[in-house]
Amino acid sequence: MSEFKFSTDVRVRLPETDAFGIVFHGYFFTYFDVARMDYLRNLGLMDVVRAGRASNLIAHVSADFRSPARFDDVLSVAARVSEIGTTSFTFRFRVTHRAQGRLVAEGKSVHVVVDESTLRPAPVPASFRDAVSRFEA
Amino acid sequence: MSEFKFSTDVRVRLPETDAFGIVFHGYFFTYFDVARMDYLRNLGLMDVVRAGRASNLIAHVSADFRSPARFDDVLSVAARVSEIGTTSFTFRFRVTHRAQGRLVAEGKSVHVVVDESTLRPAPVPASFRDAVSRFEA
Amino acid sequence: MSEFKFSTDVRVRLPETDAFGIVFHGYFFTYFDVARMDYLRNLGLMDVVRAGRASNLIAHVSADFRSPARFDDVLSVAARVSEIGTTSFTFRFRVTHRAQGRLVAEGKSVHVVVDESTLRPAPVPASFRDAVSRFEA
Amino acid sequence: MSEFKFSTDVRVRLPETDAFGIVFHGYFFTYFDVARMDYLRNLGLMDVVRAGRASNLIAHVSADFRSPARFDDVLSVAARVSEIGTTSFTFRFRVTHRAQGRLVAEGKSVHVVVDESTLRPAPVPASFRDAVSRFEA
Repeated sequence: MSEFKFSTDVRVRLPETDAFGIVFHGYFFTYFDVARMDYLRNLGLMDVVRAGRASNLIAHVSADFRSPARFDDVLSVAARVSEIGTTSFTFRFRVTHRAQGRLVAEGKSVHVVVDESTLRPAPVPASFRDAVSRFEA
Repeated sequence: MSEFKFSTDVRVRLPETDAFGIVFHGYFFTYFDVARMDYLRNLGLMDVVRAGRASNLIAHVSADFRSPARFDDVLSVAARVSEIGTTSFTFRFRVTHRAQGRLVAEGKSVHVVVDESTLRPAPVPASFRDAVSRFEA
Repeated sequence: MSEFKFSTDVRVRLPETDAFGIVFHGYFFTYFDVARMDYLRNLGLMDVVRAGRASNLIAHVSADFRSPARFDDVLSVAARVSEIGTTSFTFRFRVTHRAQGRLVAEGKSVHVVVDESTLRPAPVPASFRDAVSRFEA
Repeated sequence: MSEFKFSTDVRVRLPETDAFGIVFHGYFFTYFDVARMDYLRNLGLMDVVRAGRASNLIAHVSADFRSPARFDDVLSVAARVSEIGTTSFTFRFRVTHRAQGRLVAEGKSVHVVVDESTLRPAPVPASFRDAVSRFEA
């Protein structure tokens, strides 16, 4: 699971930039979310998400910023599931500037699956594990 | 109901500015929302809002921009209910730059009260009408 | 200039929705901005915008909300220049739910052209007037 | 430098929540930014920031989410500078639900100081190091 097999493009919108002329760093988590949702949609797994956050809590996120992105830049946001544990899974992201090829940012998010009634950690659904394993294999 | 008796301050956050160095115009509707909620909280009417948007739909908004706001500026956002109809009410907003006193923006929002089960227009609650009339009188 | 000849699609992102389960009304101005920029890019007029906001100030915006939009909905945002005055021009927008065909929102924005050095109103550039007239004719 | 001596309050705004009824995780980086700016303003160091991002690039951010925050919740965002290196410094954040006292999120951001003309790493200014050391001592 070391290479990205999926990516989606986003064009930087004006309100995503700030007074320093570049994308405000917090908006990269919006780009990651867009890529994660597109990844899940692509694998037919959007129902897992729609069922409610209770079934899928974000426990941790991080990002490393390598170079700036500016208004109207088209960014390619690659996404993959890098790890699936018993009750959690991890997404990795890599953002590149499509026209210039340079690396813009890298990131990750850790998700915990929980039982919707008890809100306690629950096993990663087999449907998720299978679909992801097939795709990333 | 022609003068503002209530206002709240907001300090411009970095992600609210854009690459032109000023607040992106769409964020003024966030400032209006903050002022509207503070106004309702001040009048003990937050329950009306918390009950769900179904009971209070935004039908129309507008804003006129008079001068720019920049990062770290403190803005005073005045709010008042200017009209209460049978099934709707109107908020007006005026944003001024606190340190410089200049007018930054003006705006309004029109809200329609609806029955939560049928989603059809319903009378403005007497509690809302009374509390607002007392305050704005 | 009464019909829309240009539109762009946006898919509703999670952070654009709010606790009421629908798109926060202020984000429609982001969608309008995306459509306006795509319109200008399509007509080869992005340089007019990139030159700096000083040359193109937003003086007024408004929106009417007809029905809600939700997470993951694909919205079609139509845009056109409806009026060109001596020193200003007006954009109109119409947002429809692509899968369901229903009207979601309508809006407009009024832009004033100003001289970048004096910041006083200046004539709408002939290049803008010509390109728009040709396209909208 | 292990305890927080500074904190600022933010009230959760409606557009910061999402369709799951809680604050979208990416907005915590906005809260961190608000607290960082308030911290710097409190120490008389805002000029360091205003000079332009070129002098202070964000290289890394992360956050751990402990419990949800909802619309209208008042959050206390504690901030401190935890490390100052030769050309970089690190902020730490802790977000608590003010009324309930529970931990909501923790985070950090790593900033690299660069020379504004060459954009290469440059020493942390003595004024920054001194003011922070005095405050955090």
